Amino acid sequence: MEDNVVFVGTKPVMNYCLAVVTQFNSGVDEVVIKARGKSIVRAVDTAELVTRQFLSNVVKKQVSISTDTVETDAGTTNVSAIEIILGH
Amino acid sequence: MEDNVVFVGTKPVMNYCLAVVTQFNSGVDEVVIKARGKSIVRAVDTAELVTRQFLSNVVKKQVSISTDTVETDAGTTNVSAIEIILGH
Repeated sequence: MEDNVVFVGTKPVMNYCLAVVTQFNSGVDEVVIKARGKSIVRAVDTAELVTRQFLSNVVKKQVSISTDTVETDAGTTNVSAIEIILGH
Repeated sequence: MEDNVVFVGTKPVMNYCLAVVTQFNSGVDEVVIKARGKSIVRAVDTAELVTRQFLSNVVKKQVSISTDTVETDAGTTNVSAIEIILGH
């Protein structure tokens, strides 16, 4: 089970901030924020808001980008992805 | 002079890929891709395309995110930013 992963999609950024803060308050040491395509900017916003405004003891431990291959009706397509690891 | 910095904005991703490839072909060892706000996803796309398709000897050396403070007519506002360092 990947309890400490927050997938960022198209909802408002605050929803994902709340999800990340909730994870940290439940006692985990690390939370991984993941997003693909246009949601990447919301993942970055979430990480910045959490570390700057909500949890000042949490830092960005690692940021990595990659390419995911996605199956669609029209065949396979490539989409960029981001993974941000937050921790104490 | 920061010759080896490519600022990614709202143009098509291929324009920025070409800019990065041109930099490397001119002999630099590192190129820094920077973007803010909604352009962050295009910066990630640019880095992924360059490293996967155009220059297989170039790798992502570092990815970092930050918050920039921008002055607007309505006062100051915060915007997320990304910096991707590509190199040999």
